[in-house]
Amino acid sequence: MRRIALVIAYDGTLYCGWQIQPNGITIQSAVQDAIAQVVGTHCEVFASGRTDSGVHALGQVVHFDTVSNIPIEKFTKAINTYLLNDIRILRAVEVDSNFHARFLSKSKTYRYTIVESDILMPMDRYSCTLVNGKLNCDIMKKASDLFVGEHDFAGFMSSGSSIIDTIRTVYSCNINKDGNKYHIEISGNGFLYNMVRIIAGAIVECGLGRSTLSELENYIDNAIHTGRYKTMPPQGLTLVRVEYEKYAI
Amino acid sequence: MRRIALVIAYDGTLYCGWQIQPNGITIQSAVQDAIAQVVGTHCEVFASGRTDSGVHALGQVVHFDTVSNIPIEKFTKAINTYLLNDIRILRAVEVDSNFHARFLSKSKTYRYTIVESDILMPMDRYSCTLVNGKLNCDIMKKASDLFVGEHDFAGFMSSGSSIIDTIRTVYSCNINKDGNKYHIEISGNGFLYNMVRIIAGAIVECGLGRSTLSELENYIDNAIHTGRYKTMPPQGLTLVRVEYEKYAI
Repeated sequence: MRRIALVIAYDGTLYCGWQIQPNGITIQSAVQDAIAQVVGTHCEVFASGRTDSGVHALGQVVHFDTVSNIPIEKFTKAINTYLLNDIRILRAVEVDSNFHARFLSKSKTYRYTIVESDILMPMDRYSCTLVNGKLNCDIMKKASDLFVGEHDFAGFMSSGSSIIDTIRTVYSCNINKDGNKYHIEISGNGFLYNMVRIIAGAIVECGLGRSTLSELENYIDNAIHTGRYKTMPPQGLTLVRVEYEKYAI
Repeated sequence: MRRIALVIAYDGTLYCGWQIQPNGITIQSAVQDAIAQVVGTHCEVFASGRTDSGVHALGQVVHFDTVSNIPIEKFTKAINTYLLNDIRILRAVEVDSNFHARFLSKSKTYRYTIVESDILMPMDRYSCTLVNGKLNCDIMKKASDLFVGEHDFAGFMSSGSSIIDTIRTVYSCNINKDGNKYHIEISGNGFLYNMVRIIAGAIVECGLGRSTLSELENYIDNAIHTGRYKTMPPQGLTLVRVEYEKYAI
């Protein structure tokens, strides 16, 4: 048995998220179906984490097991043949059987993109979230800095999650401004359900002057209070890359 | 009677081009229907030029006549209310009755975007054309320079056009490289049918080494020969802006 890791980019607009659903096409089902066409058998595909409907990826990492003897350099092109052009395998790497796309990830990086405008340009409608108001970039950068480090992010998790340990470490959180677009880029050892979208919401509220930095600072690590900051829409969110300790994927 | 000019951006992916067709939804029909909802009557909308199915616009200019007394500053938001988010009115300007979006344009600027890669990233699939091969940027810049000036572009027009005068003036033609993307930006006093897409094809063939600069130079102004360079696909093409002599739209 061989274990194959894939790096995948996708536009999540037309899919019901990563994970297989009883109704609706998901990225996982599309990728599994394409792999089955190539290797001839069903293979369950494990991702570094789920992404929600409308969320995109530039570098999702997944793995699957197969007895196929197809050369590793043939997998990318072969699987892409059976996918629509909104999902692309970027590369395939053969890994040992200890590798696990989800359990061994040491760092994930997400980007949340907002555009400061009255009008959302048509080409940005699936990849950016419109913020109709004047943003203070300096304040947003200071807000971003507050998330860095080990914190209790219970206040940045959507209700309904069964997670109990809400401590996560954010390695970096930066704002990159490009014209009227703001890219919030955040790396960490793991993220709670909707954590990036709620963090983006908090940064935007600070940028608009609807929250102060001290209010945000007091809210972080304060697991008793939740729901102060709203969850931003999915279409601004992209999983940029996933990194592993001993594996170069 | 008032004459209103609009600047419009659109993602042409899901439309059968600008011009009204017996079958299929066009940008023109969508915009006319939205205007009718706002002003209460049907108004024919005249564009600076047609765009084909799959071609986009950042700054298409159109005009229409209406007896409506809606304040000019209300038009943009009102019309956008009745459009899907792949078409956006960017601004509305009241002009005198001599203005004509098509006949008075003095300059149009198009951008054609190609991406040099083995794999077309999902987010680029509607706005870029993949070129699978190594491009020489210096050669492409030299090829671009050959188009500047007044030339007979008969060799850069798709067959089937009824146009007889094939002389056009290209004001500028530049290549802007951004990572593995090349934006060919071309301004001129007018363009023949598919002219920009064929010029892009010629520049790419030079960049790939499949045409020499001297072959291209000899081909331009040589109205006897046609069809040497292929028409690039529509999805890389965007109408960036239209300018007028005496009107600031």
